[in-house]
Amino acid sequence: MERNIKITLEYDGTNYMGWQIQKHGKTVQGTLKEAIEKILNHKITLTGASRTDAGVHALGQVANFKTSKEIPVEKLKTAINGLLPPDIKVIEIEEVPLNFNARLDSKGKTYIYRIFNREVPSPFEYKRAWFIPYKINETELQEVLSHFIGTHDFTTFSKLSADEKKNPIRTIDKIDVVRDSHTITITVTGRSFLRHMIRVIVATGVEAIKGKIDKKTIPELFEKRNRKFAPFLAPPEGLYLMKVYYNDYPF
Amino acid sequence: MERNIKITLEYDGTNYMGWQIQKHGKTVQGTLKEAIEKILNHKITLTGASRTDAGVHALGQVANFKTSKEIPVEKLKTAINGLLPPDIKVIEIEEVPLNFNARLDSKGKTYIYRIFNREVPSPFEYKRAWFIPYKINETELQEVLSHFIGTHDFTTFSKLSADEKKNPIRTIDKIDVVRDSHTITITVTGRSFLRHMIRVIVATGVEAIKGKIDKKTIPELFEKRNRKFAPFLAPPEGLYLMKVYYNDYPF
Repeated sequence: MERNIKITLEYDGTNYMGWQIQKHGKTVQGTLKEAIEKILNHKITLTGASRTDAGVHALGQVANFKTSKEIPVEKLKTAINGLLPPDIKVIEIEEVPLNFNARLDSKGKTYIYRIFNREVPSPFEYKRAWFIPYKINETELQEVLSHFIGTHDFTTFSKLSADEKKNPIRTIDKIDVVRDSHTITITVTGRSFLRHMIRVIVATGVEAIKGKIDKKTIPELFEKRNRKFAPFLAPPEGLYLMKVYYNDYPF
Repeated sequence: MERNIKITLEYDGTNYMGWQIQKHGKTVQGTLKEAIEKILNHKITLTGASRTDAGVHALGQVANFKTSKEIPVEKLKTAINGLLPPDIKVIEIEEVPLNFNARLDSKGKTYIYRIFNREVPSPFEYKRAWFIPYKINETELQEVLSHFIGTHDFTTFSKLSADEKKNPIRTIDKIDVVRDSHTITITVTGRSFLRHMIRVIVATGVEAIKGKIDKKTIPELFEKRNRKFAPFLAPPEGLYLMKVYYNDYPF
């Protein structure tokens, strides 16, 4: 009898060309699919909730695949983890109704973006945070980023695919900025996001508090509907997919 | 005029054969010495406070070297960091009296040992903590490790060099065990330590709460004065040199 298996994943994206399988280069989806297929001894379709870009990390990516094999989920998890490299691990596994789809059924996502803000970079934050040596005032950053909360046309602040051009309206429900010693963590929750959207928003916020752009003009930038008015992109290593919501989206 | 320069270092020890220069293999001392000599354009003697082993990390290693070059310390720090790889950084630099010696003048050190305690390993803790999948009770671990506080002959719990055999008496002033979610952090402060001492103590504590050895026998094990009665060694990746005290040792 066919079963639908939902898995929750952690990965350090440093050594991957992103989630999605590509013709060339190692991907998270490809590495995971290969491990699962080796255990199940049949081909699978592996659907991920978010197509994280090259170098982007995850502490709560969700994916699903189908199998008729009767192996209990906990045994399956142990077997898959045994084949996976140290930088990708399945942390949760459960059987779900056959119609569950990790991507289509997502009701929202939380990402964090981490900035390491000290004069000297940290050996332990290399490729795990955006290193910024000049002082960032987190209260000011929170204030600037608050302009992005709500429902907007995010064309100026993303890289749109042909499909997304038809509907570039997105809603951000919450943005929080917290500093803990040298690390600034920006938490962003929304129903869905356009490509590069969080990295453009974070970089625009940083440029604004540096004075490179006037923060009062952010509402006008939305109206420009043109990426060239926010030509900033924070590096991928600061971005982490934290959680995918299904029926538990809090907004 | 000769100057004595004190530097404080952070490093991820994963890719190094330890602090001390060896005939074969990359070391932290060797990598750092090379960078400093390139900047100063003369040979130096680089003295480190602690000879951390292969794979051991540091958030507060201290070293010193001498030079007659007049370059200001902040410029020197920036220049050295520019030549260092991402996994070693100088975080503080200052000029000190000519007779200061990072190793001989140390009055005490604090190390932490990190255990990642969850059923599944973390991609972000790989090579940065000891992964233990079965549940460790941190209160019980604190209780067992408390037996190591105080002044003891640590022969049973270390790997002694010929020199150290003459005086294997050491004093541990404080051991704290704290859990934060899946991470258990053991903080150990003492005047000085024997080789492998903290890693043997941590591993012995873990074996004791697993029931492999009886925790009540720990006082007797000290009296055995023989390493074979505590044949345990926690992996290097959990150990971090946090702080070297000079005139600020709190005990």
